[in-house]
Amino acid sequence: MNQTVEIICIGNELLIGKTLNTNAQWLTRRVTTLGLTTRRVTVVGDDINEISSAVKEAIQRRPRFILTTGGLGPTFDDKTLEGLAEALGRSMEVNEEALKMVKEKYLSYAREGRMEAAELTPHRVKMAKLPEGAAPLRNPVGTAPAVSIEHENVIVIALPGVPSEMKSIFDESVASVLKKAAGNVTFFETGIEATKVIESEMAPLIEKVMHSNPHVYIKSHPKGAERVSRIEFHLSTTAKDSGTARRQVSKALVQLRELIQEKGGKIKPIKSET
Amino acid sequence: MNQTVEIICIGNELLIGKTLNTNAQWLTRRVTTLGLTTRRVTVVGDDINEISSAVKEAIQRRPRFILTTGGLGPTFDDKTLEGLAEALGRSMEVNEEALKMVKEKYLSYAREGRMEAAELTPHRVKMAKLPEGAAPLRNPVGTAPAVSIEHENVIVIALPGVPSEMKSIFDESVASVLKKAAGNVTFFETGIEATKVIESEMAPLIEKVMHSNPHVYIKSHPKGAERVSRIEFHLSTTAKDSGTARRQVSKALVQLRELIQEKGGKIKPIKSET
Repeated sequence: MNQTVEIICIGNELLIGKTLNTNAQWLTRRVTTLGLTTRRVTVVGDDINEISSAVKEAIQRRPRFILTTGGLGPTFDDKTLEGLAEALGRSMEVNEEALKMVKEKYLSYAREGRMEAAELTPHRVKMAKLPEGAAPLRNPVGTAPAVSIEHENVIVIALPGVPSEMKSIFDESVASVLKKAAGNVTFFETGIEATKVIESEMAPLIEKVMHSNPHVYIKSHPKGAERVSRIEFHLSTTAKDSGTARRQVSKALVQLRELIQEKGGKIKPIKSET
Repeated sequence: MNQTVEIICIGNELLIGKTLNTNAQWLTRRVTTLGLTTRRVTVVGDDINEISSAVKEAIQRRPRFILTTGGLGPTFDDKTLEGLAEALGRSMEVNEEALKMVKEKYLSYAREGRMEAAELTPHRVKMAKLPEGAAPLRNPVGTAPAVSIEHENVIVIALPGVPSEMKSIFDESVASVLKKAAGNVTFFETGIEATKVIESEMAPLIEKVMHSNPHVYIKSHPKGAERVSRIEFHLSTTAKDSGTARRQVSKALVQLRELIQEKGGKIKPIKSET
C-alpha cells in the first residue's frame, strides 16, 4: 500500500524568514505518528505558477496524499486553490456547500455584532470558489473551508496557514482519513544522550547496531559542536503493533548503550521534544 | 542579474517532525536581508536518490545559488555530498585541502585531551571526500567542512545541519558571496497590527494600496481566527538604497492606515519577530 505523504507549504512569509514553519513540523509529526511517511516538504511563495509547479511535481512522485498549508483566505495573495486547479487541469467554480459554510460564518459574525453586514462580497465568495470536483472541509475556528480533491489516485487536501485553523481541521476531518490509509501500523521512537564520545568514533558502532537490527533506524545528532562531546541518538521503527515496535527498538538500544559504554561514554535519557 | 536562491534541507528528523526547521527560517531571513530572493525551500530525507533528485530539479529552475543544510558528518546517513555528486554527474574524491582541515581538527581535539588518538579513520576521511571540483569552506565550530561547487552557472553550497556550525560558516564564507551577487540592493519591511476589522473587509483595500504602490508587497496575517479580529499587515520592498526602500514602504503604510481607520479599525505597531 502506498503510504507516502508530501507536504507543500505556501506563503511568501516562509520564504523571507518572517515566519518559522511550525506547520510543517506539526504535520510531519502527525503524519508519522499516524503510521504514514512524509517523503518531501516543499515551500513556495504566493504565486499561481509556483504553486501549480510544486503540486504537479509532487503528483508525479505518486504519493497517496498531498497536504498543502496556506493561501485559502479572502485576499489577492491567497492563490492556493487557483494553483491547484491549474495543476490538475480543472476549472474553478463556486461550490454550493462551501458557499453555505462561508455564508453561515459571516451571519454568525454579524449576529455577534462584530460586523455591520454579512453580505457575500466577491472576496468572501472567493473562499467558496474551489477546483471542479473538490469538496470543502468544515473550518471549526476560522472562515475559509479546507478543500479535499482526488486526482489520479492522489488525495490533495488544502489546509489554511493559520496554525489553529490548520490543526483543528486536520484533527476533525483529515486524521481519520490518513489513519485509515496507514492501516494497522505503529511508529515508535526513543532516544538517549551520550557524553564523552565523539560522533566520528560512534559512526562505525551505529552501523554495526543497525546492521543487526535492520528494522530500526538510528540517527546521531551532535548537539553544539563535536568540541563539547554531546550526542543525541534517536532510534525509531514502524511495525504492525506497538509491542513489536517497542521490542525492536529496545533491543537495538541495549546494544548501542553497551557499545557507547565500551568507548568510555556516559549515557543519560533525553526528554522528548514533543 | 539572476538573484534567486533555493534552499534544500536534508534530514529524516525534519520529515518525522522531530526537529523544527529553524535553519530554513534563519537562511531565508539572511538571504532576504542580503538582497536576494529565496524561490523555494525543499526538505528531503537522508537518501542519495532523494537528495540527488532535489538538487537536479533545483538546478533546472536556474537559481544563482543552491544552499543545502545537513548531511555532512561522519555517519552512514550523512549523504549530502554523495547525492550532490550524483546530481552533478561528478565522482567523489578525497580533497586534500578538506583532509587537512579535518586532520587539524582531530589533532586539536587530541591535544585538548578529549580523544585518545587523532588518526584518520575511514569515517573521518569521509568528511573530506567531496564531489570532483568542489572546494571546502572552513568550519569554525565543528569538524566537517562545508562545500562549495559551481555547476552550469549555479553555485551550490552545502552547509552542516547543526545550527551553530551552519551559521558560523555562512557568516564567515557565504554571506559575502551572496552580498556580491545581490549588488546594491536593500530589503526593507515594516508592519502594523489592526483590531476591529476583519480580513475579508480589508482584502479590497490592500489591493487598492498595492495598486498605487506597485513596488511594495503587502500581506495580511489573521492572528487567531477572524473571530478575534486581529490582523497583522506586513509591508516590504526591495530597492537600490535604503532611503528609497523606506520611502516606498512609508507611503503605502500611510495609505493603509487611513483606509483601516476609515473602516473603524484600531491600529498599533507590531514588534518584529526577528
